[in-house]
Amino acid sequence: MMAIMHLLNPLKLCLSVVLLLSSTLNLVVGQNLTQEQQANTNRTLKIGYVVYEGFTPLDIWGPMELLFQLSYQRNMTLAVVSHKKGPVNARSPPHAVGHNPEISAADYSHMINPQIIATHTFEDAPHLDVIVVPGGAGYFHFAEEANNTVMEDFLAHRGPEADYLVSVCIGSVVFARAGLLAGRRATTNKAAWTWATDPSHGSNITWVPSARWVQDGNIWTSSGVAAGIDMMWAFLRHVYGPVLDKLVNSIEYTPHTDPDWDPFSVVFKVPGANQNHTLTDCEAPLPT
Amino acid sequence: MMAIMHLLNPLKLCLSVVLLLSSTLNLVVGQNLTQEQQANTNRTLKIGYVVYEGFTPLDIWGPMELLFQLSYQRNMTLAVVSHKKGPVNARSPPHAVGHNPEISAADYSHMINPQIIATHTFEDAPHLDVIVVPGGAGYFHFAEEANNTVMEDFLAHRGPEADYLVSVCIGSVVFARAGLLAGRRATTNKAAWTWATDPSHGSNITWVPSARWVQDGNIWTSSGVAAGIDMMWAFLRHVYGPVLDKLVNSIEYTPHTDPDWDPFSVVFKVPGANQNHTLTDCEAPLPT
Repeated sequence: MMAIMHLLNPLKLCLSVVLLLSSTLNLVVGQNLTQEQQANTNRTLKIGYVVYEGFTPLDIWGPMELLFQLSYQRNMTLAVVSHKKGPVNARSPPHAVGHNPEISAADYSHMINPQIIATHTFEDAPHLDVIVVPGGAGYFHFAEEANNTVMEDFLAHRGPEADYLVSVCIGSVVFARAGLLAGRRATTNKAAWTWATDPSHGSNITWVPSARWVQDGNIWTSSGVAAGIDMMWAFLRHVYGPVLDKLVNSIEYTPHTDPDWDPFSVVFKVPGANQNHTLTDCEAPLPT
Repeated sequence: MMAIMHLLNPLKLCLSVVLLLSSTLNLVVGQNLTQEQQANTNRTLKIGYVVYEGFTPLDIWGPMELLFQLSYQRNMTLAVVSHKKGPVNARSPPHAVGHNPEISAADYSHMINPQIIATHTFEDAPHLDVIVVPGGAGYFHFAEEANNTVMEDFLAHRGPEADYLVSVCIGSVVFARAGLLAGRRATTNKAAWTWATDPSHGSNITWVPSARWVQDGNIWTSSGVAAGIDMMWAFLRHVYGPVLDKLVNSIEYTPHTDPDWDPFSVVFKVPGANQNHTLTDCEAPLPT
């Protein structure tokens, strides 16, 4: 029994994410929170991911990791909303690239196909406080299906009712096509810049060429894929206060904490990109 | 029609991950590959994730993003293997921390619960060339269920038949308990170091205190959570050659490319940690 206790005490003391986070929680109590942060801390935040076939896995699951870890100590619910309930493919359906007759429909059936499970449809989704929209090659398909705007219609209706709108990668194009970015600053995937910022997706949008992410009021848009993790870090810090600061240590992640850090806008030659940012200015993890 | 073509040509030229990757593929043709890389390029690599309730989402989906993107241009299959087919919860089942009677079973039912879909069970899993095991708080539960070793038994049987074994976070403890790490160097989550490296999990293992990841022959083990992305980057570079180098640009990720980079071993005061590494030595993205 002593041997077991010898083993179990380090177990009790050292990892248990629960215990780690509990100690973080204790630190947060007593910190000055904004009124918004205090209100969010005291309520159950209803998170909704709006997903579609051909999503980019990390667009969903990078930010989701932070939400998941934070849900040890903050009350939130998760709905995954899509065209139909059940498995949603990361693999894109066959589609032409740009309806260009010179390019026949691409076949992605050789690709691996991890899936996420949709818990709700656009018809039966609950009220959502936070709506998160990922990017993905599948959206090229949806964006060109002029008669299939059910996702954009859902967002046009539910977006204004939500407290926060969050997009990763070309998820901001989904917002744009739902009419949610008019009069707003936003960013998007830097390799897809020309397509994503085409005025046909929505007018009166100020696309920011060099940005890891952009916050404009209650709308947060990130650059491509991995940038979504950094934006979610900043977003949750805004929503709850510094509770997340040490959580990134526990997942051994070094966030880019400067929203203007964007070497990829330089790499992909985005017009108007800020050339002066160093390519090596990562952030250090925070001490415990 | 001209207006449409005007829109579609940038679309055709600028994002389409497919086209981006195709150009990368062209660069790779003509590069010198090792015999191993050439053989892997010419075969279908059978990837198997071994998962369990209470997995850490990013442990699975960070490395998965690289596999998914690479599957545009390299032949691979994906099996997700678990105790039963269908949805597997990221949320841990209720369990005590360390069977310590002073700590009652923790209840995680308030947490959000994203899921992955298991395509196979331990009974009907196909042959696997690469076995990937994530970490997760749920494994504290399984590690203490002395009578439930079906996952470890599966790995003990299938591990030696696989060409590569890959673990993220305390996934290396699963390998250890399956007897696969005897005589090997390995690493694991730095916050969980004391528990994870306890000799009760397996003897004759050289745990490396400061490492983003460790390669020992065909066994690759990473540090906690986000470290899995960096290890998978290095692993796939080993398996296929430099085909992945520019793919990390397309997902706007800046990998830590030095396996010895490990500020978290310092942050979490791992005995024997290398104190000399700077906390800010991130890697820059690669130019296109």
